[in-house]
Amino acid sequence: MTQNIYDEQAFFAGYSTLPRSVAGLDAAPEWPVLRAKLPQMAGLHVLDLGCGFGWFCRWACEQGAAHVDGLDVSHNMLARARESPADTRLHYRQADLDCVVLPTARYDVAYSSLTLHYLKNLDQLFASVYAALKPGGYFVFSAEHPIFTAPSSPGWLTRADAGNVWPLDNYLREGPRTTDWFAPGVIKQHRTVSTYLNSLIKAGFVLTYIDDWGPNVEQIAEHPEWADEQHRPAFLIVAARKGTAL
Amino acid sequence: MTQNIYDEQAFFAGYSTLPRSVAGLDAAPEWPVLRAKLPQMAGLHVLDLGCGFGWFCRWACEQGAAHVDGLDVSHNMLARARESPADTRLHYRQADLDCVVLPTARYDVAYSSLTLHYLKNLDQLFASVYAALKPGGYFVFSAEHPIFTAPSSPGWLTRADAGNVWPLDNYLREGPRTTDWFAPGVIKQHRTVSTYLNSLIKAGFVLTYIDDWGPNVEQIAEHPEWADEQHRPAFLIVAARKGTAL
Repeated sequence: MTQNIYDEQAFFAGYSTLPRSVAGLDAAPEWPVLRAKLPQMAGLHVLDLGCGFGWFCRWACEQGAAHVDGLDVSHNMLARARESPADTRLHYRQADLDCVVLPTARYDVAYSSLTLHYLKNLDQLFASVYAALKPGGYFVFSAEHPIFTAPSSPGWLTRADAGNVWPLDNYLREGPRTTDWFAPGVIKQHRTVSTYLNSLIKAGFVLTYIDDWGPNVEQIAEHPEWADEQHRPAFLIVAARKGTAL
Repeated sequence: MTQNIYDEQAFFAGYSTLPRSVAGLDAAPEWPVLRAKLPQMAGLHVLDLGCGFGWFCRWACEQGAAHVDGLDVSHNMLARARESPADTRLHYRQADLDCVVLPTARYDVAYSSLTLHYLKNLDQLFASVYAALKPGGYFVFSAEHPIFTAPSSPGWLTRADAGNVWPLDNYLREGPRTTDWFAPGVIKQHRTVSTYLNSLIKAGFVLTYIDDWGPNVEQIAEHPEWADEQHRPAFLIVAARKGTAL
């Protein structure tokens, strides 16, 4: 069972104050990249793995999706998602993504935002997502970047002479990382970029786009406090399709 | 024109002392991974981009390749390669890979070892390699890992309390990096992992394997001096095929 930190009150209260929690997709600086890799939603069947407050699910409905399933492990998150006006196309369900069972060949799009780095059984989930997609279906996700999750002390190191560096260590040692983020003892699963990508390939996916994501020049100009973000990617964004390769 | 550091005497003399320069493929700890991604060589037409002393070209011949073209920018390297006994299947040619012209649909395998991080025009080279391969052809390469090439001060940083870290900065700032390695002023081109992979996808390749390569547990046990190598990958290894995706 994946740690369900979002149902711990201190964490949930802190998480709820993030700009993306308050204002949704447009407050997430990586959203334009994810959106650009998604197909037109009109008439599609959509799956959101780790739907949180349901911002993406509601966006998909606004864009004309025919059916949207939003899964999340957190009762807190789902309760908040359900506070929005009901939509007959929109279905929330509590599920642990480390052992979720998905319907077969049901979806045109699978989406996941900043969830997969909490999961232990990525091979199993990717195989399930592949089976749950129709032929040609899209899988688009973001996760905390492995360069971000790797370090034993994840925080900027200021050198006397030459500015901040990201103190990378243990990148090739995969496994749990315990950090303090809104609450002590938040457990993330570190794995390398190549493990994410090879797991997709093994499941049958064709990789169509990879992004070592950090804010772009315009975003940094608008948020000078993000300047250090050019030193290491915060998120890994991947787009893949269920297709017939070779 | 790519910097031709291998034709500068001090660099060449230093490089020639590396275990892999003296003893060839079996002295390169990443070789088993590259080899595992190559098809059986018997009867194949093979291209080596940055062939150096010709170790891989000769191996391909030993394995039964029908024709091997080895390209390198360095006259020094090619002169040394040609000191080995001649083989009518083996053809060395001086070429700048940033503007090389390759024949069309000629090769079954394209290979490159630790060369691409010197090149400026990766999109152009990958498009040329794609065109030079037969349908179903293999492209297998290693390059210095972007985590390795990024830093402004690429060397271990020792913390008083917690061992060595790799001082990552400027990962998202692509472009030249000047370092001292056997000679002052060696110029490498830093680009992100995603730039390598998206450039391959754009050229038409289907990605089949990615490796954030570092020595494995057995290799570190044999070479305790490599222990820090688990902190960041030294090489990026990629296998791709010319196939019909989707």
